[in-house]
Amino acid sequence: MEIIKKAVDMQAWSDSVRQSGRTICLVPTMGYFHEGHLSLIDRGKEKGGEVVVSLFVNPAQFGENEDLDAYPSNIERDLALARERGATAVFLPAVDEIYPPGYQTYVTLSHLPHHLCGLSRPVHFKGVATVVTKLFNIVKPHAAVFGAKDFQQVCIIRRMCTDLNYNIEIMAAPIVREEDGLAMSSRNAYLQPSQRPAALSLSRSLALAEKMVAEGETTCHAVKKEMEGVIQGFPEAVIDYISLCDPNTLEEVVSTDQPVLAALAVKVGTTRLIDNRLIDPAGQG
Amino acid sequence: MEIIKKAVDMQAWSDSVRQSGRTICLVPTMGYFHEGHLSLIDRGKEKGGEVVVSLFVNPAQFGENEDLDAYPSNIERDLALARERGATAVFLPAVDEIYPPGYQTYVTLSHLPHHLCGLSRPVHFKGVATVVTKLFNIVKPHAAVFGAKDFQQVCIIRRMCTDLNYNIEIMAAPIVREEDGLAMSSRNAYLQPSQRPAALSLSRSLALAEKMVAEGETTCHAVKKEMEGVIQGFPEAVIDYISLCDPNTLEEVVSTDQPVLAALAVKVGTTRLIDNRLIDPAGQG
Repeated sequence: MEIIKKAVDMQAWSDSVRQSGRTICLVPTMGYFHEGHLSLIDRGKEKGGEVVVSLFVNPAQFGENEDLDAYPSNIERDLALARERGATAVFLPAVDEIYPPGYQTYVTLSHLPHHLCGLSRPVHFKGVATVVTKLFNIVKPHAAVFGAKDFQQVCIIRRMCTDLNYNIEIMAAPIVREEDGLAMSSRNAYLQPSQRPAALSLSRSLALAEKMVAEGETTCHAVKKEMEGVIQGFPEAVIDYISLCDPNTLEEVVSTDQPVLAALAVKVGTTRLIDNRLIDPAGQG
Repeated sequence: MEIIKKAVDMQAWSDSVRQSGRTICLVPTMGYFHEGHLSLIDRGKEKGGEVVVSLFVNPAQFGENEDLDAYPSNIERDLALARERGATAVFLPAVDEIYPPGYQTYVTLSHLPHHLCGLSRPVHFKGVATVVTKLFNIVKPHAAVFGAKDFQQVCIIRRMCTDLNYNIEIMAAPIVREEDGLAMSSRNAYLQPSQRPAALSLSRSLALAEKMVAEGETTCHAVKKEMEGVIQGFPEAVIDYISLCDPNTLEEVVSTDQPVLAALAVKVGTTRLIDNRLIDPAGQG
């Protein structure tokens, strides 16, 4: 497995892979791998070509009061896991390789970021869209895999990819969960054992929402009310948002007469957790 | 010469050119060709590969009260001229091919647009950077040629190109002028014959600025004052800005002890004209 730190070296590597007729699948990550990340590498491997994992904690997607400085990191372990899982190369740039002095270009979307996580994280998706655009130009992939836990991110990347005319297949890999149902996240490392029950309220509230819709509830307001009740059972859990929305536009819907995305963000102590579930009233959810 | 209207067809054409080992030079235009545009094709031809001219009046770079609807057009003539000058292909997309329904992704720069023309045209360079990013992904060029008349545009494209990791050489071709000194522009078609003397005040004021610096004037304030006087000799001419600035950052400078860009925008009647000149106090200007 190659470890590449410079953008020009990565581009040269990718050019030579492309010239030889092989394909490239990109797995963009911020490191501190859990099974969710590794499942993205597996998805990439299934494409049959080279898998490039990028490992970069992107400062542009953190707001001023967010956890950039505290973001967990273990690069040696990440490299060993990526190698073990069969990645062909890891792109591991320094911050000033991606944002050199004088850097000033950003990619923004006018609608999709103004929902869900974008409301409380106003710079987040600008940072995401920008770094992914750069990674597309640096790694030159044929496909890229993202985790469905960050559902809004996948929506935004798909839209950016279409809008900016990238010929790149955007794949979403299913959420990987701990045995108790907690969606895997690098940020779970922040949780105290005593906070675990509160953290589990996210997945429990989504399971309840799915059950309600399966049993015939069609009013989003009623579903959200019950989800809220589950979260509010834990004084440590503070709701950022609970949304039932259109999975394409991310706009709130009032009725579950069509497939809806149930999504929520909750702060448990100082740790912000997110989770989501696609709910299909036809019972395929 | 091929005429290509769909982005996917253009990409397929470019992929096949690249696979054959030939190079592509892009000449982005909004059509209504004059000798300035044609000189860009010449510069492209000098690169020795294929020259793709894009012909697209980009709505995203016009403000609400600007001249999008009036922008002059003569596509048949443009195609004939491009063919005659040796372009290999023309990319001629419809508006909804570039901005389909639901389009929402834009490329912005945080500093360079906040100078010169960007001050009175607040959406202009967002539209320019966006469409050029898309053209880079559609035409996949090795090089692109822009006219030096739009000096700020060239600065912005160079920065965007570096920031977003495009391996594309950005070339600036010298301003082409009418015999009387007026910088060629598609918008010159709007001018009445009686407005010609006022229109010529732009190039005259730049010539005066260069002469003053050559004769030892070092204070930008004094130079701008004299340029202002030249323009104000014509009641029909209304100054938007006169700037002596750093050619890299576009920030105003106070002294001509280093190479400066003299740039101005003037409305003559309803027609907005721009012009500029690089002035080197060492006498190479």
